[in-house]
Amino acid sequence: MKNRRWILKERPEGKVSAAHFEWAEEPVSPPPAGQVLVRHLYLSLDPAARIWMAGPSYMPPVEIGEVMRGIGIGVVEQSASPRLPEGDLVTGLLGWQEYATLPEDELTPIQRHPRLPLTAYLGVLGHIGLTAYFGLLEVGRPQPGETLVVSAAAGAVGSLVGQIGKIVGCHVVGIAGSDEKCRWLTGELGLDAAINYRTQEVPEALGEAAPNGIDVDFENVGGEILDAVLGRLNQNARIVLCGLISQYNATQPVPGPYNFGALLTRRARLQGFIVTDYLPRAGEALPQLAQWMEQGKLKFRIDLARGLENAPETLNKLFEGANRGKLVLQVGEEGPSPHFSGEPT
Amino acid sequence: MKNRRWILKERPEGKVSAAHFEWAEEPVSPPPAGQVLVRHLYLSLDPAARIWMAGPSYMPPVEIGEVMRGIGIGVVEQSASPRLPEGDLVTGLLGWQEYATLPEDELTPIQRHPRLPLTAYLGVLGHIGLTAYFGLLEVGRPQPGETLVVSAAAGAVGSLVGQIGKIVGCHVVGIAGSDEKCRWLTGELGLDAAINYRTQEVPEALGEAAPNGIDVDFENVGGEILDAVLGRLNQNARIVLCGLISQYNATQPVPGPYNFGALLTRRARLQGFIVTDYLPRAGEALPQLAQWMEQGKLKFRIDLARGLENAPETLNKLFEGANRGKLVLQVGEEGPSPHFSGEPT
Repeated sequence: MKNRRWILKERPEGKVSAAHFEWAEEPVSPPPAGQVLVRHLYLSLDPAARIWMAGPSYMPPVEIGEVMRGIGIGVVEQSASPRLPEGDLVTGLLGWQEYATLPEDELTPIQRHPRLPLTAYLGVLGHIGLTAYFGLLEVGRPQPGETLVVSAAAGAVGSLVGQIGKIVGCHVVGIAGSDEKCRWLTGELGLDAAINYRTQEVPEALGEAAPNGIDVDFENVGGEILDAVLGRLNQNARIVLCGLISQYNATQPVPGPYNFGALLTRRARLQGFIVTDYLPRAGEALPQLAQWMEQGKLKFRIDLARGLENAPETLNKLFEGANRGKLVLQVGEEGPSPHFSGEPT
Repeated sequence: MKNRRWILKERPEGKVSAAHFEWAEEPVSPPPAGQVLVRHLYLSLDPAARIWMAGPSYMPPVEIGEVMRGIGIGVVEQSASPRLPEGDLVTGLLGWQEYATLPEDELTPIQRHPRLPLTAYLGVLGHIGLTAYFGLLEVGRPQPGETLVVSAAAGAVGSLVGQIGKIVGCHVVGIAGSDEKCRWLTGELGLDAAINYRTQEVPEALGEAAPNGIDVDFENVGGEILDAVLGRLNQNARIVLCGLISQYNATQPVPGPYNFGALLTRRARLQGFIVTDYLPRAGEALPQLAQWMEQGKLKFRIDLARGLENAPETLNKLFEGANRGKLVLQVGEEGPSPHFSGEPT
């Protein structure tokens, strides 16, 4: 039995392709004491992957020769840990591979929600939901009646931020990259306005969509979109700096926003946010997120691709705005393992 | 008797000169009811003057045809207000003129400190001291043992920030524009290190002067200096964005810092700060500032120029780094008025 995996071969400049990885096949071994062998079911593809490939940042980079890093959901196939018996569902940094052997303390067991799909644990009930919840509510601190702008508003995090903003009572403006996305935002998700940055002049469109100015910006994009937002900040505005996806593929140094001075004159607070800092507090957020989802107050799209071999090119959909909701790669089939149906080796 | 004044004639592009103003002489009239006539003694020249000339920002701009705005100290020469009798010392927006007629509620009486010069009310005991105190302590929130970097460290605000940082127990690094300033910072003011940005490579010099990284940056300058600081931020760093003097004279749009993304990866908080928001809380800060000054813990230099006619070119010293401490223009003589020695008109 083989474990197929993507190994980082070289650090990309610009767009990622399969050429930056090596496709490797290695035999699967039984787990050592205290570890488990996990069969990978669903791999989350996130913009952070591009940061991890580039070099040191908020966490150590993926080293050349290592399996590519990624959050996933899997099932314990073989266990040498009393805490995680075979058949348990788990989540953790399973990586871009079909099997992961990991210490028990690097995996979180999933108590599967009876009415939500398993992929929800890579979305609303996973790092995505926690990012939207803590980033908006703890860092952005929106108040009822305030105006919230969210960029990449049809993306995984953005679509939750916009809806939580409505739950809180904000006037919510989403910025997205197609008319279809914009219709989804103002239609199904109930945002107050949406701007297509590919066809509209964002500064002018923001003037119309946010006539009272901007109190909170949940920033996923950076670049010209952030500049347009900074140009319309209200006094004491807050900017949750969650992502700068417009520049992750840049091959030249990218300047900060030209309206940087507005942060001074508007006495704005801009704060960098990484969800890992809030993982110890996940228990505060997850029941609320599950309840909102069950109540239909949080809608969520999963964009499911299939096949580990497609991981590099699928990742690029994020940087082209080609995904429709949370990008997830199905790596294996739920249900009994095709490989371990007999005796464990 | 004449009031000589500088009237804004046109908005500057780039450096300010006398050509942007008109020198006017107007007769002085007795104040209407509720107002007082103030003879101007000391005019504060601050970087904000350049912002007020440029157009709308954190407060309305000086309009074309209006007297140029500036904070000053003066003496009440004629009073139509029972609250402010003749002879009282006052501070407020007296403007670039020798006499100001103002409503009583736009002036703050000065209870002159027995052991400090009157100019202290444009420095440690005025908007400068309040900027350093609230900006550093309320926004920056430095903790003992943390590393504080301050740019324009030999300037009026910066020199106080560095010293308050030492009082709080920080490792303090100042960035200034000459060896003489740097010697003053590490010698008389007791900072731990100083960097001459004109002769040193700031990124490398910061690596040596702040070997444990940067926890708090009190930013007065922007541009390459801010970029160097952002490159060495510790996690959860705070940036007090108090000024961007490197770009106030710019004639082209200036990009934000190239290391903007470090705010995200280091989970930094950057917050714009304008002292006017804290004026209602001045009473919390002024007794402490006065005590520190009397105890010799806060040293302060006044760079005193003379003659209202020199205001435009004197202002430019700020943008050239040519001032040595707080820039003040003496507009009139303390002591009995040369004009109103006889009967009030």
